[in-house]
Amino acid sequence: MDAHKQLTIGLFGFGVVGEGLYKVLQQTPSLKASIKKVCIKNPEKKRNAPAELFTTDKNELLNDPDINVIVEVINESEPAFEIVSTALKNGKDVVSASKKMIAEHLPEVLGLQKLTDRSFLCEAAACASIPVIRNLEEYYDNDLLHSIKAIVNGSTNFILTKMFEDKLDFQQALLLAQQLGFAESDPTLDVEGYDAVNKWAFLLTHAYGIVEHPDRIVFNGIQNIQAGDANVATEKHYDIKLVAQAKKLQNGKVAAFVLPQFVKHDDHLAFVKNEYNGVVIESGFADKQFFYGKGAGSFPTASAVLSDLSALRYQYKYEYKKLYHHKPQELTNDFYVRVYVSFDDWKFIPKEKFEWIEEWHAETDRKYLVGVLPFEELRNNRWWRENNTSLILSPDAVIEDVEIRKLKKKSLELAGIV
Amino acid sequence: MDAHKQLTIGLFGFGVVGEGLYKVLQQTPSLKASIKKVCIKNPEKKRNAPAELFTTDKNELLNDPDINVIVEVINESEPAFEIVSTALKNGKDVVSASKKMIAEHLPEVLGLQKLTDRSFLCEAAACASIPVIRNLEEYYDNDLLHSIKAIVNGSTNFILTKMFEDKLDFQQALLLAQQLGFAESDPTLDVEGYDAVNKWAFLLTHAYGIVEHPDRIVFNGIQNIQAGDANVATEKHYDIKLVAQAKKLQNGKVAAFVLPQFVKHDDHLAFVKNEYNGVVIESGFADKQFFYGKGAGSFPTASAVLSDLSALRYQYKYEYKKLYHHKPQELTNDFYVRVYVSFDDWKFIPKEKFEWIEEWHAETDRKYLVGVLPFEELRNNRWWRENNTSLILSPDAVIEDVEIRKLKKKSLELAGIV
Repeated sequence: MDAHKQLTIGLFGFGVVGEGLYKVLQQTPSLKASIKKVCIKNPEKKRNAPAELFTTDKNELLNDPDINVIVEVINESEPAFEIVSTALKNGKDVVSASKKMIAEHLPEVLGLQKLTDRSFLCEAAACASIPVIRNLEEYYDNDLLHSIKAIVNGSTNFILTKMFEDKLDFQQALLLAQQLGFAESDPTLDVEGYDAVNKWAFLLTHAYGIVEHPDRIVFNGIQNIQAGDANVATEKHYDIKLVAQAKKLQNGKVAAFVLPQFVKHDDHLAFVKNEYNGVVIESGFADKQFFYGKGAGSFPTASAVLSDLSALRYQYKYEYKKLYHHKPQELTNDFYVRVYVSFDDWKFIPKEKFEWIEEWHAETDRKYLVGVLPFEELRNNRWWRENNTSLILSPDAVIEDVEIRKLKKKSLELAGIV
Repeated sequence: MDAHKQLTIGLFGFGVVGEGLYKVLQQTPSLKASIKKVCIKNPEKKRNAPAELFTTDKNELLNDPDINVIVEVINESEPAFEIVSTALKNGKDVVSASKKMIAEHLPEVLGLQKLTDRSFLCEAAACASIPVIRNLEEYYDNDLLHSIKAIVNGSTNFILTKMFEDKLDFQQALLLAQQLGFAESDPTLDVEGYDAVNKWAFLLTHAYGIVEHPDRIVFNGIQNIQAGDANVATEKHYDIKLVAQAKKLQNGKVAAFVLPQFVKHDDHLAFVKNEYNGVVIESGFADKQFFYGKGAGSFPTASAVLSDLSALRYQYKYEYKKLYHHKPQELTNDFYVRVYVSFDDWKFIPKEKFEWIEEWHAETDRKYLVGVLPFEELRNNRWWRENNTSLILSPDAVIEDVEIRKLKKKSLELAGIV
């Protein structure tokens, strides 16, 4: 008996990923998956595939009863959502790599899966070759996932690596990333953290059943990080990484954000260099797991799509266990974070907002402090990312509500204030 | 529609893993999997579960039509094979953690899966919490897997870590591992490499479609490694790891073995310390992936069983694509390895067997050399693991047949011989 579904694919998009997938499928006949038609925007562009494969009419794919899988690897979020909605409603399974679309339309995408009972798989949308979604779905049960932290954006990680290893400044490192194809010509989405928070939004759904618009998650990119910050990090034996993280607090709620962070050299994430991604999961049963691989690029992304196609053959669906089978977790802002802040002038820093300040260095042009802030402050105000101010989380930045009083007292004692 | 199979489990074994699984299942009600009966050997032993759960009669489980899944986590290989065979023949799916049984009965286990069309899942049998089998099955197609190397035995990795980080000698490190529960009271299986090569035998099936008895795979453990070897490694800025590896050669065949190896500090495997396991996979599409996690222990192993149970609900089966959908790969001995050998006396070393020797150090009590051997020599003779001789692979040890002449010439030139 061979229960495997024969996959007849309608592919949207033939950029680096789409073409990568086409090539990969040609080299993996065992999958019994074939692309019947590819919908593209620009029919004039020369393609490395037979002309009869292409169309510009999306309905040729969406209304073709032979096509049972739509693979969507286009860049624009709104057209992607339209394609995905129609495909699911037309009874087709969907594989998508559009992180922005998924993040921005999360409730609708979830609703459509329920409504149509079709599969919607998107391993390629986050960390590409790292099977993070499937692992979060299969390995972890709600109460057991203590924390997850990850480097989910390869461009920023490449830039930070070059700032540290080759002592480039931010602009030089960005230029190099662009030259090597690790950053877009308009790098804003990557550099300012939008791409990372988009991915984090739906990874939080798979990890904790949290359904939150990316706009509601506190995030920043690496655009404010300066060579001086890298020097301080090096002095303290830290790297700087853009870390997406979520942690279950003692009050049962979840702290989650995407922010630059000082990372110790023996931290798993310090191991993740250049354009690579990495995910560290701590749980009650599996203990600590670390996944590492390429998070972007034509073939790594195509390989993730391939693994989703492979799973479709046995009707695999995400169950969103933490969302539907449990009481979903809630996000909270009710905790504190230890932060490093560097700045040009004290006037930009609302010192009174800090619970306490542990270090201050005002001797140079570029000043900095280390102190503890209520997380609410990051959420409600923007001084920490304006006026050339740079905020970087300390290692183990999260301080729980229940610990703050004790720590504050200790800190004030150390400073000789009480 | 909820197509999920309700899982009614018959469990064999209630040691640390069996009891771990019992506890884990109690904490994961969403899985809708319940243990109906547990078969144990010793009814006198006090168990942390209701008495009515237990039986000593295997047929109570194997012949119960309600039970649709047999989970087998016992230690002895032959009884495990009997249980697995009967369960599959009786139409039940099977989850097994018995690496020795799987390795030794590989052709029969494969045959039974074909014959019965039932699922046989064994993620827990190799690297526990690291989903290596599922990834090899889902992510990699035959022609694309360039290489896989792994640390698959936590006991030996713990011992080696302690030899390096705390400068313990082998016996001290072994004792510590035993005290902490990372090594058995009879450590032979772990220390001498049997456990690692057993896992490697069936991982080779998932990776390359190779079906080979573990006896036919060249392996060694770490029993011969001495403090002096660790000193040499430290001088050369290497760690020593017990590395299971397989590499596709230019002639299309596969080199595979389990041997101690010098590993550079920036190698992914150097990152794997103490009782952890790690797997590095290099492939054409996904590029380089690295998986890291606990490879043994009650909960990590139970979590792997759990993920198999979760997969059973949607009738997941291993496809053994590389075995059935492709021409399976063949193992070869037709290559060379660069090795470090330390020894007490030259008389134990057949110098004439080396293609060339690059370094020799005879000034101390403990002598050593670095040279290149035909791999056949390791396969056919045992001098390299007898008489207190210790053989450790160099980093990037494999030298292909097509490269050997060029390298030999270069080496002899360097030595001033030609």
